[in-house]
Amino acid sequence: LTSRLPHVGTTIFTVMSTLAQETGAVNLGQGFPDFDCDPRLPQAVTAAMQAGHNQYPPMAGVPALREGIARKVEALYGRRYDPGTEITVTAGATQAILTAILALVHPGDEVIVLEPCYDSYVPNIELAGGTVVRVPLVPGTFRPDFDRLAAALSPRTRAILINTPHNPSGTVWGAGDLQRLYDLVASTDVWLIGDEVYEHMVYDGQTHQSLATHPGLAARALIVSSFGKTYHVTGWKVGYVLAPAAMMAEFRKVHQFNVFTVNTPMQHGLAAYLADPAPYLGLSAFYQAKRDRFRAGLARTRFRLLPCEGTYFQCVDYSALAVPERDLPEAAFCEWLTREVGVAAIPLSAFYGDGFDQRVVRFCFAKRDATLDTALERLARL
Amino acid sequence: LTSRLPHVGTTIFTVMSTLAQETGAVNLGQGFPDFDCDPRLPQAVTAAMQAGHNQYPPMAGVPALREGIARKVEALYGRRYDPGTEITVTAGATQAILTAILALVHPGDEVIVLEPCYDSYVPNIELAGGTVVRVPLVPGTFRPDFDRLAAALSPRTRAILINTPHNPSGTVWGAGDLQRLYDLVASTDVWLIGDEVYEHMVYDGQTHQSLATHPGLAARALIVSSFGKTYHVTGWKVGYVLAPAAMMAEFRKVHQFNVFTVNTPMQHGLAAYLADPAPYLGLSAFYQAKRDRFRAGLARTRFRLLPCEGTYFQCVDYSALAVPERDLPEAAFCEWLTREVGVAAIPLSAFYGDGFDQRVVRFCFAKRDATLDTALERLARL
Ligand SMILES: CSCCC(=O)C(=O)O
Ligand SMILES: CSCCC(=O)C(=O)O
Repeated sequence: LTSRLPHVGTTIFTVMSTLAQETGAVNLGQGFPDFDCDPRLPQAVTAAMQAGHNQYPPMAGVPALREGIARKVEALYGRRYDPGTEITVTAGATQAILTAILALVHPGDEVIVLEPCYDSYVPNIELAGGTVVRVPLVPGTFRPDFDRLAAALSPRTRAILINTPHNPSGTVWGAGDLQRLYDLVASTDVWLIGDEVYEHMVYDGQTHQSLATHPGLAARALIVSSFGKTYHVTGWKVGYVLAPAAMMAEFRKVHQFNVFTVNTPMQHGLAAYLADPAPYLGLSAFYQAKRDRFRAGLARTRFRLLPCEGTYFQCVDYSALAVPERDLPEAAFCEWLTREVGVAAIPLSAFYGDGFDQRVVRFCFAKRDATLDTALERLARL
Repeated sequence: LTSRLPHVGTTIFTVMSTLAQETGAVNLGQGFPDFDCDPRLPQAVTAAMQAGHNQYPPMAGVPALREGIARKVEALYGRRYDPGTEITVTAGATQAILTAILALVHPGDEVIVLEPCYDSYVPNIELAGGTVVRVPLVPGTFRPDFDRLAAALSPRTRAILINTPHNPSGTVWGAGDLQRLYDLVASTDVWLIGDEVYEHMVYDGQTHQSLATHPGLAARALIVSSFGKTYHVTGWKVGYVLAPAAMMAEFRKVHQFNVFTVNTPMQHGLAAYLADPAPYLGLSAFYQAKRDRFRAGLARTRFRLLPCEGTYFQCVDYSALAVPERDLPEAAFCEWLTREVGVAAIPLSAFYGDGFDQRVVRFCFAKRDATLDTALERLARL
């Protein structure tokens, strides 16, 4: 039994959530809220089940949901995607990204990832037979380094994976970043895969720069988002992809032979709920308050705070803690923090191919205030 | 934009369902019931959502569901799978099969399919970089041809896809078939992927021969099943895979980077419902009655009935119809039947790589009696 992914173990999010559960630690590791969704959302799903929406939906998704997505995207980002040919509902963002890569990447093609990056990207490219080309974000600030990106482009580059707001660093791209990206790729036939699942969590008056806002980029992009994070239903596993029709036709060829289609009652429930923009328009303010509470608490500890402009992640540098903890590598530090302090976190090294270790860990602040306060109390003891 | 799947269009099931909807035809094409599930099932899902089960479940699936699956499989097939390491919940059977193939197949490996076969298998193998080796089932009877299978085995064979009860032909394997398969593979390191989604629909007192019942086969098999067909909820997209722990570890490496995990409320609802064996134990009798009603009606037409031992599909030969219809190739015949007669069917040629045309089409009888009667009335006019 020769592994297709010999360097891969169990995803760090599962490892840390399992450890948190076993030890009873406060779980600020894996990204998911510990509070429930708006009760109107399950009610809408129940109504759909009662109305008999329990059989296969259309392969690309329930039409009302695709139409709702088209309206939302057009209102927010100014680009009209055709629900018939340019929008497909997926079983979450991770499935969307694997499917996009399988549809795009031929064996031997190069795909660029900006490190640190989400842990599914690299195995996804490997499964497609592609060659991973890693371009580091600027160390310390985690901003895109366009010179290094330019140097990494080659005639074999098939795609670049772009993630903004960025997991794990919490940075967000500015409008200038999109333009610089465009200047780099305009004369190539490189595709972009945009992971924008944190699109509704951007703080301090900044705005999310979707690839959809830039016509030149949107014309060569598959844009991935999800309802899990936006609506506090990470377990529902419903996301979507936007892409120009010719690309979407290729995406659907793979999608139909991966999941075929996505849970019907959830799609109907989400379609009904999506009509009201208030929940997603209010999300940045909701999470900014949590970020501020969490940062204020951390400011009283010996952790050094990194910037957090978006997402629900706060990164901290622990190199000013006491010996011996400050000398632990990130993974060992996270295990120690979970077991001995009772707070689970994610090592940033899990987002690098070479396990690059900078004494930084990621906390998720998408938690009840009481949960954050308990964690802060424990962290303050260090 | 060079296609990864240049020979693939939209899956035939979507094409025919779309045409049926446009024309108002009775849809006996795509396999799904036109009646609703047991109301206790959506009630259990609603209860799970109300209990707050809306965030990520464990990557391999909700423990109670995996335990329920283990109990069911052990009771029916006599093999104990460990819920911790040998069972994974998937977003339906199609996702399970792609994931199994991506986990098993290295570029250049050969994978054997028995034709006719479900239309996702071949593109799945191609996406993994594998070489498809097609072995025909015995023409006319659709039984496995072990001599041809033996001849197709090579040192590069990584896996064989086995589907019983068989879609589209409705044949089921006997215990002797399992033993003959074992005799062929025992001395090799070939893996088996068993697609057993119709396991609870076997007629006339036959029993389903799961790969799980044969220890020698089970030790080298990934066995795929699903709740969609068993519980009349094809749109819920929840299935599962059984495999020995070492293989399952590889499966999960890919699964976690495909869908990561599966809809939480549905998993809890299914776990609760699964405790009662009556629904699946009664399914064969339920569908046998529909098969008999449908066959009795077809016996009064000029269609020639093929055997149907399981699944919810009945194949018919239309070569005794009037000219010119009997001379239409299968795909054209299905389009004509949908548009002009008002009954949608699936051409068997869609299950062959070379489009082999034997003037046979597949009807789905998982329909209300009134629906079947309407279809029969229309078909009787031919
Ligand atoms: C798919 S589990 C991980 C959730 C997440 O996006 C994260 O924690 O980074
Ligand atoms: C996934 S759509 C097709 C359903 C099915 O199994 C069939 O019709 O053969």
